[in-house]
Amino acid sequence: MIASLEKLVDVLTTLPAIGRKSAWRLALHLLERPADQVSEIAQAILDVRSKIVKCRRCFMYSETEVCEICSSARRDQSLICVVEKSHDIFAIEKIGRFRGIYHVLGGALSPLSGITPDKLRIPELVQRIKDEKPSEIIIGFGGSAEAETTALYLAKLVKNSGIRITRLARGLPAGTELEYVDQITLGQALNERTDIHYGE
Amino acid sequence: MIASLEKLVDVLTTLPAIGRKSAWRLALHLLERPADQVSEIAQAILDVRSKIVKCRRCFMYSETEVCEICSSARRDQSLICVVEKSHDIFAIEKIGRFRGIYHVLGGALSPLSGITPDKLRIPELVQRIKDEKPSEIIIGFGGSAEAETTALYLAKLVKNSGIRITRLARGLPAGTELEYVDQITLGQALNERTDIHYGE
Repeated sequence: MIASLEKLVDVLTTLPAIGRKSAWRLALHLLERPADQVSEIAQAILDVRSKIVKCRRCFMYSETEVCEICSSARRDQSLICVVEKSHDIFAIEKIGRFRGIYHVLGGALSPLSGITPDKLRIPELVQRIKDEKPSEIIIGFGGSAEAETTALYLAKLVKNSGIRITRLARGLPAGTELEYVDQITLGQALNERTDIHYGE
Repeated sequence: MIASLEKLVDVLTTLPAIGRKSAWRLALHLLERPADQVSEIAQAILDVRSKIVKCRRCFMYSETEVCEICSSARRDQSLICVVEKSHDIFAIEKIGRFRGIYHVLGGALSPLSGITPDKLRIPELVQRIKDEKPSEIIIGFGGSAEAETTALYLAKLVKNSGIRITRLARGLPAGTELEYVDQITLGQALNERTDIHYGE
């Protein structure tokens, strides 16, 4: 009925988790917003696409050729945490405790879906290991089957290089009642139980 | 950490029903989309604000000075349905059965919140009634207290003018089990019960 409104609804429904109803609501909201705010939103969308590139070293999103983390003197450049995607870095950085650097793999191995090592940034990781000679590589993956496969693949790759390779601890999530924890998690938590130290 | 990404997340959270988590998801999605699609989205947002005005006659959103409905020869120009907002027109038009035209009031009366008749397009409606001499005015409001107040106000305004004034029927929504209908609706459905006609 109103071409530009329908066009906007159409493009908004292509976004994740936005159905037709939400798209209409958003479109009508944008119609009522002051024009300068609407331009600001449109500009922010364009900027994110034009200003952000991938860090030449770790492949995280960055506005500079080498990202802030890779170029920080306060970071331990010999400790590389390998993650599936940039988003995972934001999650780790939020804790504010990790002092190393990263490597974004771009996904996890899934031979059945055609995601073989050459589709990920594994060659780039191998090159970095050769060039940078890190002291430790942390596998910063979640618990999916693909993540497990990838972790094992990377561990084999690094084996015999003298580099320490570690993974994130598996176990009970914080604040969970034992009765609600799934069996696999509980099994892992039991297998990988740790000693309690009294005092220091 | 990445200024343009954080800026986008910030502006996206100002949209209705988009929290910080959804905003991050949308922003990262936009980062991964092909650049031309992202420009298309930004352009659609700008277009909706620059191309759409309010119809000079009925105040519905329109890309032309007088909207498609007001300027349609197939519409009964003597039948005006008064609605609160443009969005309501989209809902009525979806049924595809209403053959009259509209008047967008811009809200409902709510003296306690300072929404008095002069804040709505009631003077404009009075002028239209004078100029266009419609045969019927349909109050196309929902069931809120403010809508009731506004309906009564408009009915008084039109009284003695010889114009027929009607309202949308109140009663049971389609497909509802009687046991789940609230008491007020059920009471109205009982009060305004209609005769069943056998044959034609």
